[in-house]
Amino acid sequence: MSFIDIFSPSGHSNRVVIVGGGFGGTELALRINKIQYEVVLLDRHNYLTFQPLLYQVATGGLEPDSVAYPLRKIFGKKKKVLFRLANVQSVDAAKKVVRTDIGDICYDKLVLATGSVSNFFGQETTRQHALSLKSVTDALDIRSFILQNFEKALLERDPVIRESYLNLVVVGAGPTGVEIVGALSELRAHVLPSDYPDLDLSHMRIMLVEADSKVLGAMSATSSENAIRQLRELQVDIRLGVRLMEYNGEKAVFSTGETIQTRSLFWTAGVMGNMVPGFPASSLVRGNRLLVDACNRVAGYDDVYALGDIASMESPAGPHPMLAPVAIQQARNLADNLGKSPDADWTHFSYRDKGTMATIGRSRAVADIKKLHLKGFIAWIAWLFIHLILLVGFRNKLVVMLNWIWNYFSYDRAIRLIIRPYKNIH
Amino acid sequence: MSFIDIFSPSGHSNRVVIVGGGFGGTELALRINKIQYEVVLLDRHNYLTFQPLLYQVATGGLEPDSVAYPLRKIFGKKKKVLFRLANVQSVDAAKKVVRTDIGDICYDKLVLATGSVSNFFGQETTRQHALSLKSVTDALDIRSFILQNFEKALLERDPVIRESYLNLVVVGAGPTGVEIVGALSELRAHVLPSDYPDLDLSHMRIMLVEADSKVLGAMSATSSENAIRQLRELQVDIRLGVRLMEYNGEKAVFSTGETIQTRSLFWTAGVMGNMVPGFPASSLVRGNRLLVDACNRVAGYDDVYALGDIASMESPAGPHPMLAPVAIQQARNLADNLGKSPDADWTHFSYRDKGTMATIGRSRAVADIKKLHLKGFIAWIAWLFIHLILLVGFRNKLVVMLNWIWNYFSYDRAIRLIIRPYKNIH
Repeated sequence: MSFIDIFSPSGHSNRVVIVGGGFGGTELALRINKIQYEVVLLDRHNYLTFQPLLYQVATGGLEPDSVAYPLRKIFGKKKKVLFRLANVQSVDAAKKVVRTDIGDICYDKLVLATGSVSNFFGQETTRQHALSLKSVTDALDIRSFILQNFEKALLERDPVIRESYLNLVVVGAGPTGVEIVGALSELRAHVLPSDYPDLDLSHMRIMLVEADSKVLGAMSATSSENAIRQLRELQVDIRLGVRLMEYNGEKAVFSTGETIQTRSLFWTAGVMGNMVPGFPASSLVRGNRLLVDACNRVAGYDDVYALGDIASMESPAGPHPMLAPVAIQQARNLADNLGKSPDADWTHFSYRDKGTMATIGRSRAVADIKKLHLKGFIAWIAWLFIHLILLVGFRNKLVVMLNWIWNYFSYDRAIRLIIRPYKNIH
Repeated sequence: MSFIDIFSPSGHSNRVVIVGGGFGGTELALRINKIQYEVVLLDRHNYLTFQPLLYQVATGGLEPDSVAYPLRKIFGKKKKVLFRLANVQSVDAAKKVVRTDIGDICYDKLVLATGSVSNFFGQETTRQHALSLKSVTDALDIRSFILQNFEKALLERDPVIRESYLNLVVVGAGPTGVEIVGALSELRAHVLPSDYPDLDLSHMRIMLVEADSKVLGAMSATSSENAIRQLRELQVDIRLGVRLMEYNGEKAVFSTGETIQTRSLFWTAGVMGNMVPGFPASSLVRGNRLLVDACNRVAGYDDVYALGDIASMESPAGPHPMLAPVAIQQARNLADNLGKSPDADWTHFSYRDKGTMATIGRSRAVADIKKLHLKGFIAWIAWLFIHLILLVGFRNKLVVMLNWIWNYFSYDRAIRLIIRPYKNIH
């Protein structure tokens, strides 16, 4: 073979185009019946990103290559998935075409699995200046950015400006926010003092700001309180019931009137669907997501499906959380249903919640597994093992485990290269 | 401490400014007597690069973070080296000032250890389009670039253009050229067929072009012939006594009149000193290098020194090779000499050559160690061990060893993320 034409209609009305190679899209591409369907997967990256560990890349604990896995390696020769590196621009459902930067691709069935992006709720100035951690490139940019700010602090004579380079603020106390703030505190305690002996770090502040009255709002009250206690041990400055009003790249202003000078503000306070243009308002719900039925069919279409973060499916227990397990389970259910005849009864999706957890730092974590609330060392070990199991690829598991063991015994975060120019950030 | 002023003259006439944190500059900064001198080290990167393994980063075998090591971690708290991230623009020797993008830095003694850059011998079109592998960012760019070309080949209907995306040409058959071409051949044999089952790789050419009549010109005739045999086993197209006349990004033209369509041409056919402006022609020699005496003093100056690739020192056995061991040994000798009183007899440098080696691929290498010429598996194992020993940092040694073992048994090069946009390349 040499040129496979995905730009003309398939002769057999059987081409499934999947947009997005995250957990949901990849699982679907693997599971779908290849005798019945020709499967085309589109993504703007050539790898699957393991988002739960991105914060460790941003803080020097892991290599970027350990938390991502080449999509072509997942599919290989035998899986018969046509992967194409493409930026999807819009969908023309009337013509059954996906418009991309590599051309218009014809589909018979379309599955959107494009995930989510940060939601700044209209705070335009904040959006321009805040750091947001959704991709491997974000994580690399942030690592370089924080380290560059420390280098700049060394050159700064004005103590107020100098502290603005050192202070770190995280807005949003969900799992990602808590994990970032924990990792930053450990950098401050164990790495920065020896890397920057000429800097006075005693005034460096690490602040966690949350509009809600508790941290880890989706977890149990016990775990939430345990998390606060562990964060305080790491000297994190916690502000509950406080909203960010504006951040201009140098100063953050909060709803209480308090301000802080900082060059590094992380935004983890909201996400919304990563929508592809071309759908009417009637298919959309709040948070820029596609309304789907219990079989992940997009409202108003009989050949378009959506799964994972981009899909909003009502369930008796309320909406599903925007987490990888939901996307993976929906992908499996959809692959099964697509294997059935169109008029057969399709199985409705039901979510099996296996628990939630968040790590805070070395020997510090919380976990809710059914009625069980773990904390401290046990929760941390559970978190490590579950994430090792979830990582794709044996090499990645090995390298990550080795790094974690190394980090544990050395108190180090060794991966501190500045490999992106400052201008890439803002 | 909070602000250390390196921008005013030192009060004690004892500030040594070292430009370049490569093997030479770093070794000197570690060895120099800190009671006698205040040491400032400048580099545009915050890490030491282990150049001999860059080609493995470019071809997906190693993570970038494994072949680089944070300079601040090398020095830590106790070594009393003031590292500053800076781009050096020029030297004003009359005012004893180094001009940089972070300001003018005053020195009492200056050491240039800026290494080398590619020399295109005036071929301007080639310079604009060829790939050159001198830094971690180069290696990452090249990895992404090659993978992106394969993705483009999948979309190309014209067979001639398609082959231009697949063909790979390496100009210059020194150790770097041989190592790149070997790694590319292994990618072609073991990784690309399963990643790109829809591409016809039977017409993909990997060509090694050398103006000299043998490969690995600095090694023994035996090793050179062994290298050719091993390269031929890997189906490398070798052209000896052939010069590149021009490369315009799409087509390479050779001195024999032969041409090849290729989008990826590596240039390893020449290097020159990475000069800092500000020195008169009388201090320079051919190849843009600084003429130094047997104690690494730059000709015409009594407070400026140069070491490693940037320094050209005559020796009874001819000029020293531009290799890391020369830079490291010169740094040790200079550190010793700087510890003596100015009018004492300084020790002349003499180079202890421990041998040279080049790897060609899996179980394929050549090595000259004194009168001994090794080849094949034994040479390859020797190469692996020596490079593991030379790598800085125990974590890096571990991760690299793990990757090598993994690559050996899996025939894989797992690190295939495209993380840099195409536009960064040209």
